[in-house]
Amino acid sequence: MRVALLGGTGDIGEGMALRWARDTDHEIVIGSRNAEKGESRAADYRDRLSERGVDTDVSGTDNANAAAGSRIVVASVPPAYAADTIEAVRDDLAEEAIVVSPAVAMARDETGFHYDTPEAGSVAETVAAVTPDEVPVVSAFQNLAAGALTDLDRELDLDVVVSGDDADAKGVLMELAEEIEGLRALDAGALANSAEIESITPLLINLAMNNDGMHDLGVRFQ
Amino acid sequence: MRVALLGGTGDIGEGMALRWARDTDHEIVIGSRNAEKGESRAADYRDRLSERGVDTDVSGTDNANAAAGSRIVVASVPPAYAADTIEAVRDDLAEEAIVVSPAVAMARDETGFHYDTPEAGSVAETVAAVTPDEVPVVSAFQNLAAGALTDLDRELDLDVVVSGDDADAKGVLMELAEEIEGLRALDAGALANSAEIESITPLLINLAMNNDGMHDLGVRFQ
Ligand SMILES: C[C@@H](OP(=O)(O)OC[C@@H](O)[C@@H](O)[C@@H](O)Cn1c2nc(=O)[nH]c(=O)c-2cc2ccc(O)cc21)C(=O)N[C@@H](CCC(=O)N[C@@H](CCC(=O)O)C(=O)O)C(=O)O
Ligand SMILES: C[C@@H](OP(=O)(O)OC[C@@H](O)[C@@H](O)[C@@H](O)Cn1c2nc(=O)[nH]c(=O)c-2cc2ccc(O)cc21)C(=O)N[C@@H](CCC(=O)N[C@@H](CCC(=O)O)C(=O)O)C(=O)O
Ligand SMILES: NC(=O)c1ccc[n+]([C@@H]2O[C@H](COP(=O)([O-])OP(=O)(O)OC[C@H]3O[C@@H](n4cnc5c(N)ncnc54)[C@H](OP(=O)(O)O)[C@@H]3O)[C@@H](O)[C@H]2O)c1
Ligand SMILES: NC(=O)c1ccc[n+]([C@@H]2O[C@H](COP(=O)([O-])OP(=O)(O)OC[C@H]3O[C@@H](n4cnc5c(N)ncnc54)[C@H](OP(=O)(O)O)[C@@H]3O)[C@@H](O)[C@H]2O)c1
Repeated sequence: MRVALLGGTGDIGEGMALRWARDTDHEIVIGSRNAEKGESRAADYRDRLSERGVDTDVSGTDNANAAAGSRIVVASVPPAYAADTIEAVRDDLAEEAIVVSPAVAMARDETGFHYDTPEAGSVAETVAAVTPDEVPVVSAFQNLAAGALTDLDRELDLDVVVSGDDADAKGVLMELAEEIEGLRALDAGALANSAEIESITPLLINLAMNNDGMHDLGVRFQ
Repeated sequence: MRVALLGGTGDIGEGMALRWARDTDHEIVIGSRNAEKGESRAADYRDRLSERGVDTDVSGTDNANAAAGSRIVVASVPPAYAADTIEAVRDDLAEEAIVVSPAVAMARDETGFHYDTPEAGSVAETVAAVTPDEVPVVSAFQNLAAGALTDLDRELDLDVVVSGDDADAKGVLMELAEEIEGLRALDAGALANSAEIESITPLLINLAMNNDGMHDLGVRFQ
């Protein structure tokens, strides 16, 4: 399966690229606004995995070329640019594409981080509003810390909460999430339930700030 | 320590009363709008623990008498009545009282449960607005299922996320939470961070509705 990480040059893109490349045989494509930056970051990820003896299929290009022909298209860019980034590749999306939103809108004040509710209800719904109707949008990965994914020596035992209105697309994404060692995917129902998933992220950061020894937290439901 | 559960006749009050009575030596007082109902529910909790060979200090009365003289006053009533219930006992609160808000405002529609943000930002802040300034309010216990607490054979391995603006009060509450076997208390910072704690609850219910074999979920951060 071809998996595109738009803005995969950034923190969460790096973490997801490294984990998918290490743990699966999927073709991972790093997208960037700048094709050369995409290529050079992909080369860096490949080199780091190769040092660990893992041969991987990671390449880099611009966002449009990354999206084209990919089954999975992850909008791994800051929340304010997630909708624009998907809108810019609308016409490049494959017929079977699934758009994935890992973004969280947060604001910080003197008391801590807070969920900054977008007008559409959640970032995922903001992205869905600009995605072609026939392309399903799945919300996922908001509660995984880039730092935890990027540290390949860190063993994960975490949940990925997934929501979306297309059951098949959600199933594909849940399987793909579970191919990363130590992740369990849980179904939170409709895309309209994404706000409560996104809202956990500011809490994770508040918890890391207020409890000794906790860093790069994730969540587990039991 | 005297711990009052206002509306402790209900689901979460039952669960917390049973766990605290079983696992600690604190005096547990069940409050109700109706003193006789409070007494009879307290007798029921005592009997069930006594059948398990646990001798406990659980009594029942009306909410005002429960609040009077209690160090901990938990507003374990539906969210719409939490502020009124605390307002009604304002003058009964002990000098050292700590008010605890476990309430979650939720709405249900065809897609699932959603957090129904109160005007003050969270239920805990709604409660704080009617609590005397000198009495600290702590937000906690929103993510524990009544069903999990009430089933005394169920072993817990869950987090209680606590927020509040008074560090000492928060410390007292965190210790009290951890006296229940299997609970770990985590500090989420200021009371203004309560919305993100409360928001997890509708997600817990959505997850239980959408994933086979999951019931009465709680959460763990790692
Ligand atoms: C300031 C902060 O680093 P930062 O790169 O700004 O990262 C802050 C956050 O953005 C980062 O923690 C994000 O992962 C937070 N975060 C999210 N942040 C977001 O902005 N958006 C998200 O959607 C998001 C999701 C998320 C999910 C789970 C989770 O646990 C965290 C999440 C930090 O903790 N820095 C460390 C040091 C980092 C550093 O540079 N370390 C050095 C040396 C470390 C040392 O001195 O020991 C190094 O790595 O070489 C510090 O200040 O102590
Ligand atoms: C319908 C529902 O029961 P209910 O009493 O209405 O409870 C629904 C929810 O209110 C209840 O699950 C709450 O705990 C949900 N909930 C909260 N609900 C709230 O309203 N407010 C909260 O703040 C809240 C917090 C919370 C935190 C964590 C969590 O996991 C759940 C939380 C349910 O699941 N019923 C079961 C059966 C329940 C039942 O009656 N069982 C029978 C027989 C069971 C059988 O047939 O096997 C029995 O116990 O005797 C069902 O429909 O299958
Ligand atoms: N950091 C985390 O721990 C974490 C965890 C879970 C989810 N997330 C979510 O994942 C998303 C990305 O987070 P991140 O931390 O990886 O962010 P980031 O590193 O700050 O940015 C990711 C990439 O976005 C691109 N970008 C920056 N500005 C842009 C713009 N104006 N328009 C289009 N693209 C732009 C950049 O790629 P190019 O310069 O190559 O185009 C950048 O490398 C966010 O929505 C965040 O909420 C983050
Ligand atoms: N259920 C859960 O799993 C759970 C978990 C965590 C947190 N919570 C939170 O805990 C609180 C209580 O939940 P619950 O499920 O225990 O509720 P509940 O069983 O429906 O009600 C609790 C008690 O509230 C009292 N009450 C009802 N209507 C009232 C009114 N109009 N004014 C004042 N008191 C009233 C009743 O006591 P009397 O008739 O004896 O006065 C009732 O027994 C809620 O805020 C909920 O969000 C619930």
